[in-house]
Amino acid sequence: MDEKISASPLSPEDQAAEEKKSGQEDNPLTVLSGQSVQDSHHPADVAERLELLSLKEQVDLVTALPLDQAAEAVAELDEHTRVGLLESLDPDTAAGIVGEMSPDDAADVLDELDEDHSDELLSKLHLEDAEEIRSLMAFDPETAGGVMNTEIIILSQDLSADEAIRQVRSGIEDKEIPYYAYIVDRNEVLVGVLSLRDLMLCPPRTHLKDALKNHELISVVFDTGKEEVARVIGHYNFMALPVVDHEGRLLGVVSHDDVIDIIQELASEDMLGMVGAGPGETTDTPWFDSVKMRLPWLLVNMLNSALAAAVVNLFDGSIAQMAILAVFMPMVANQAGNTGQQALAVMIRQLAMEKFSRRKAWWAVVREGKIGLANGIILGLLVWTAVFFLTGRADLALVMVTALLTDMVLGAFAGASIPLLLKEMGRDPAQASSIFLTAITDGAGFFLFLGLATLVLL
Amino acid sequence: MDEKISASPLSPEDQAAEEKKSGQEDNPLTVLSGQSVQDSHHPADVAERLELLSLKEQVDLVTALPLDQAAEAVAELDEHTRVGLLESLDPDTAAGIVGEMSPDDAADVLDELDEDHSDELLSKLHLEDAEEIRSLMAFDPETAGGVMNTEIIILSQDLSADEAIRQVRSGIEDKEIPYYAYIVDRNEVLVGVLSLRDLMLCPPRTHLKDALKNHELISVVFDTGKEEVARVIGHYNFMALPVVDHEGRLLGVVSHDDVIDIIQELASEDMLGMVGAGPGETTDTPWFDSVKMRLPWLLVNMLNSALAAAVVNLFDGSIAQMAILAVFMPMVANQAGNTGQQALAVMIRQLAMEKFSRRKAWWAVVREGKIGLANGIILGLLVWTAVFFLTGRADLALVMVTALLTDMVLGAFAGASIPLLLKEMGRDPAQASSIFLTAITDGAGFFLFLGLATLVLL
Repeated sequence: MDEKISASPLSPEDQAAEEKKSGQEDNPLTVLSGQSVQDSHHPADVAERLELLSLKEQVDLVTALPLDQAAEAVAELDEHTRVGLLESLDPDTAAGIVGEMSPDDAADVLDELDEDHSDELLSKLHLEDAEEIRSLMAFDPETAGGVMNTEIIILSQDLSADEAIRQVRSGIEDKEIPYYAYIVDRNEVLVGVLSLRDLMLCPPRTHLKDALKNHELISVVFDTGKEEVARVIGHYNFMALPVVDHEGRLLGVVSHDDVIDIIQELASEDMLGMVGAGPGETTDTPWFDSVKMRLPWLLVNMLNSALAAAVVNLFDGSIAQMAILAVFMPMVANQAGNTGQQALAVMIRQLAMEKFSRRKAWWAVVREGKIGLANGIILGLLVWTAVFFLTGRADLALVMVTALLTDMVLGAFAGASIPLLLKEMGRDPAQASSIFLTAITDGAGFFLFLGLATLVLL
Repeated sequence: MDEKISASPLSPEDQAAEEKKSGQEDNPLTVLSGQSVQDSHHPADVAERLELLSLKEQVDLVTALPLDQAAEAVAELDEHTRVGLLESLDPDTAAGIVGEMSPDDAADVLDELDEDHSDELLSKLHLEDAEEIRSLMAFDPETAGGVMNTEIIILSQDLSADEAIRQVRSGIEDKEIPYYAYIVDRNEVLVGVLSLRDLMLCPPRTHLKDALKNHELISVVFDTGKEEVARVIGHYNFMALPVVDHEGRLLGVVSHDDVIDIIQELASEDMLGMVGAGPGETTDTPWFDSVKMRLPWLLVNMLNSALAAAVVNLFDGSIAQMAILAVFMPMVANQAGNTGQQALAVMIRQLAMEKFSRRKAWWAVVREGKIGLANGIILGLLVWTAVFFLTGRADLALVMVTALLTDMVLGAFAGASIPLLLKEMGRDPAQASSIFLTAITDGAGFFLFLGLATLVLL
């Protein structure tokens, strides 16, 4: 089986080259047990090798693996590979693999399949497991409930520390979050969290209820957005964040690895969304899916740039008289666009990491305006000099600089405001923001430059 | 003291409004111990409130706090606030606060101060603490060594499980990573990692050496870049990653909260770098620092767009004859630029999360080319129809569509290739990539459109 796992479509030469490479100093990963990563049995590595195989090879390999190893590797696959693989496996094997996953992984995986297929697999599971997975699938995947784990250590507040440790030792094996114990009252309401360290340091007869004194408890309600969950965990440096219902009853826990995934996902969504690519796109997304996700925003961009073109069209007489205007016109718009994008990027990242008060948002917009103005003045002086020396016309240089400076300040304000406005409207602050920004800086830049030129020069 | 912590510059009306807000359902954060976040003693919350105070109020409050609480709160402050505060505190208090921090936090904080000031504070610390902090400061802050913690549980492989648990219980209190024990041999070479769970489940007399069987060990060398560290932890879903020297001796551990910070930082760097903003900029960065960080890239952008303008200038005769060319010209460039930015964003995010093989990189570039071509054909048909109906000129429409389609495919290839090329050159794959991309799509778009128009239409 080992041989199979290591099988990779690389030619022997490539493999030798790869191995030589990994022996070089620039490979920072050391696997001290003497295995190379190539042979690693870590599910993430098995998954990576699986992704390089053909579907048929994937099916053969996964069928040959022990169920628990197969389950862990399948949980690590990227979505497209996983869906294809699960559809090609025989249903009993697929159900066996899903059944071995932690309930939250199983729910995520089944959510990706079409309903008939996921129902079929669920019907093959133990009734109890299926029910737990179904209840997790009921949560919106964009919320805390949709990402939480349920395999956690739960202890009653009436236990003594000694009893608690015994209970932990007997049941800890299956738990996904083995470093915290969640303490509840008789109504399953969460009353506190103790780390195993806290528990080990407790005097044996202390009641857990009393051990919780002076511990602050922070939790989120199940319908909290993933974005907010990531922000809370980042803010408090938590390793895991409990999730409760509206009555405070413990439902599960969002753990550190989920949070890393959420943060990466949100960072991708922001960067991709800003330019109108699909929020979940990777280089593994089937290319035609990408076409469908990007096309609508390219159309919006086309309409926006048609508006800017209409502005230019207002001044076609001026351009016919003075073709040099068409030469300088894109520079104004481009520079203001770049200024605005800098403001945009700073605001989008800040919104990803922090909750803004109105006051702080306002100051941030003013700050961007000042930066745009300062950069605009410095660049304006350079541009005036360059245009004057190239064309010998002080008036043209002045028109250019006035339009540039005004458009840059406008771009800075627009770049800073668009994410705030989108958020205020309940939308993703990044979505297509760059496209809207460009529409503003292009349209305004062309209008200012050509309009001033028509007034002053012609 | 509580009153002081809660002091905020909000007016009573604002505060009431804030409190009312936090009672609403859309506040997802529940603090079940009955305190509001406003009164929270969590260092992250104290830090947040500190940031709203004047420097004088900050100094008064921090001086009044117990040293350990002050240290934790100061470690959570944003860099600019922290530097200002430490410079204003009396040196003994400042040194006391730094001395209470974990050594890795202390090293980070002292790195931010100017050398004289940090030497002064170090000279006031215990010799041993100062030495540990100095040794951490020697690591490049952009590497694993620069972010690692050193307060970890280290156990000799010759201990029995029982002895190990006793040792852990006696020394665990000060450890920052209390859920893993790092097992070393006589030469301090790391031989394995056991979770406290593993340890609790071990038969009492097992030697740790034997408990490590079948555990894979993955670690990084201290000079590994932060980016790679984040990728490894994300890939394996690790909670903490050991850092070793070139001989395999254990130096420290990068922990989950460091990784969340690294991932957020890298995501910011990518998004900000892409458009030429400063990699570490936030809305708290002093505005003039932002001017200085952004100006160089705005200048590069200016030069790039001057090149594009020079291309337009080649065809000023054509534009003078046919001003409509200036109307459609920006649409071609803008649409290709957007297409390229979508490819750019996908590649930058992928490079942030995964190590690319050459083969995979090549496929990703081809994939973007196909997407650009498909979107180009669809948009091209629309544009042909629109231009034909607006101008009645089939030949102009054809020139426009040919230039658009070619520039979009070029933009897609350029957007996908630029991050790979930058990386290949050992540079940050995101840095100013959007600026270079725009230069290509603008220059080529103008050249293709105006050149074809000159050949075909005039």
